[in-house]
Amino acid sequence: MSRPLDAPTERRARRRLTEARSAIEPVLRSAVGSLADPLDTMAGYHFGWCDPDGVEIAGVQGKALRPALTFAAATACGGDVTTAVYAAAAVELLHNFSLVHDDVMDTDPFRHGRPTVWRVWGETNATLLGDALQALALGVLCDGAPESVASEAVIRLSRATVTLCRGQYEDCAFETRPTVTVDEYLTMASGKTGALLGCACALGALCAGADHRVVSAMHTFGTELGLVFQLVDDFIDIWGDPEITGKPAHSDLIHRKQSFPVVCALESETAAGRDLARLYQSRHPMTAARAARAADMIEQAGGRQCTLHRASTALDAAFEALPDEGVATDLAALAQLVAHRDH
Amino acid sequence: MSRPLDAPTERRARRRLTEARSAIEPVLRSAVGSLADPLDTMAGYHFGWCDPDGVEIAGVQGKALRPALTFAAATACGGDVTTAVYAAAAVELLHNFSLVHDDVMDTDPFRHGRPTVWRVWGETNATLLGDALQALALGVLCDGAPESVASEAVIRLSRATVTLCRGQYEDCAFETRPTVTVDEYLTMASGKTGALLGCACALGALCAGADHRVVSAMHTFGTELGLVFQLVDDFIDIWGDPEITGKPAHSDLIHRKQSFPVVCALESETAAGRDLARLYQSRHPMTAARAARAADMIEQAGGRQCTLHRASTALDAAFEALPDEGVATDLAALAQLVAHRDH
Repeated sequence: MSRPLDAPTERRARRRLTEARSAIEPVLRSAVGSLADPLDTMAGYHFGWCDPDGVEIAGVQGKALRPALTFAAATACGGDVTTAVYAAAAVELLHNFSLVHDDVMDTDPFRHGRPTVWRVWGETNATLLGDALQALALGVLCDGAPESVASEAVIRLSRATVTLCRGQYEDCAFETRPTVTVDEYLTMASGKTGALLGCACALGALCAGADHRVVSAMHTFGTELGLVFQLVDDFIDIWGDPEITGKPAHSDLIHRKQSFPVVCALESETAAGRDLARLYQSRHPMTAARAARAADMIEQAGGRQCTLHRASTALDAAFEALPDEGVATDLAALAQLVAHRDH
Repeated sequence: MSRPLDAPTERRARRRLTEARSAIEPVLRSAVGSLADPLDTMAGYHFGWCDPDGVEIAGVQGKALRPALTFAAATACGGDVTTAVYAAAAVELLHNFSLVHDDVMDTDPFRHGRPTVWRVWGETNATLLGDALQALALGVLCDGAPESVASEAVIRLSRATVTLCRGQYEDCAFETRPTVTVDEYLTMASGKTGALLGCACALGALCAGADHRVVSAMHTFGTELGLVFQLVDDFIDIWGDPEITGKPAHSDLIHRKQSFPVVCALESETAAGRDLARLYQSRHPMTAARAARAADMIEQAGGRQCTLHRASTALDAAFEALPDEGVATDLAALAQLVAHRDH
């Protein structure tokens, strides 16, 4: 991967994530508090603030990457945390609407090591919580963004949401298709992950009063970074250390997902790629041993190298979009952390 | 029911519904057209414009009550159709987001005599379509409402959505509870149905430039009318003519729903009320014959009269909220149609 992650850069990025989490928490808590019981408890549980009975705990919380990007984009454009805090909270609310719904759709049993909302309260209530979080996101943004840009901000977040839904649709549709092209994968990922990261950066710039050209450049930066994020996600599912990721090894492969390394391997026209195709199409259960063999085939077919290369290209494209790298140190640090994360 | 529906009033109300449907259709089609394939086809199918393959048909469409209320409220406040058309389209989009999700949650197989979206495209895709429709609703409103009121309009629609989710949560929760109080029912109905009807009226007034007091009065009018709507819905499930409603007779009773007549009967402390409690709690399947007996018990326990009375009170409260009935002829006509509808 281009642009290595040195220790000071990593420290800077991690500090920005921690600060972002603290900065938005009061806005998130106030928004969640406006939900009537028990939607407020469900949301608090999902955010890691309480147990299913509403008793406060010190749970594992999300990384807050999106709000950190909003703040970093605002700072890069001469703005401050105060003007961007509602936008940052809004993107986090919107991200969590999509997580709650995705967990229902994918029947994911755990998030941050705890049963997902749908497993505690059922699918219907989880769907309703997601619906409410989406509405809160747009409400918080409209209510709290600087008045002169509130409308544009809402329209951008609304569009990002629609794009995100399309990306999630495609991701689900891929599961029942024998093959997916690299281009189809990239469109899916730029919808599913790129749209909201792009919006997070654009909103930060917008709240800081940046002009149209800069807002648009920030959007491009975030969208490309979203692609990096998704590619790294796919990469560490296969080659990450389960001890570090906290997720079962080869989860994507076991579910026969068309992740990017798989797509590349299947398109490679190599012997290993054809072996992988046979393994993916076979009716045998995908055991851990078979998934480990699939991982080897993907590597032999060039899928590992291809994924690293594509992530590197996207990272370069993100950096090229930065208006002035000198004032965008935080954005750069966060981007490098995303590219080099191991979990 | 107070305020009978004479023929000219009914004609006026029906004309307003037809006009509202035509007025918002271009905005709806443009919004739906911004969805990528196949979400656009799914939406078009749901709106009755096309078959599942996207081929245009002249299908049965929704009544367009909410947009008609938005236009009527705007007119009553001196506004016109043009200023309110995006708000009217937004409430219709939001209503349809909730219908698509409700159909998934309630596993309803049909809507307007056609298979529901989740039955054609699956639950995941129906959930995604609903998510996208919610985002479109807020986007269309923000983009199209008069600039000076766009922010307040978005905040109002966002709040109405959250309240609607809570009402839907309560409605689902009632299904697993042995009893529901009249007050609990009324809170549920004012969330599930009142919030969006209230918002539809408030947005019409807002777009027409009405002052705060009037916007708030319009909101009250719509919320009370929402209660009328829900009570009449419950009433015609039991005492409506299936030939006219187009729905199977006693559907609520067969599903042992705690509809308002049932809640009143169970709270009545009459012999018939106790018989109904036994029937609702029994483990025997609720056959059509048992449901018909339940309907008789509800009537004997006063549930029919109680429902008519409560609907009449809500209708009066709606009319009392009207700033000046003289200029609100369309709102009055629509309210009377809602109160006297038989399907």
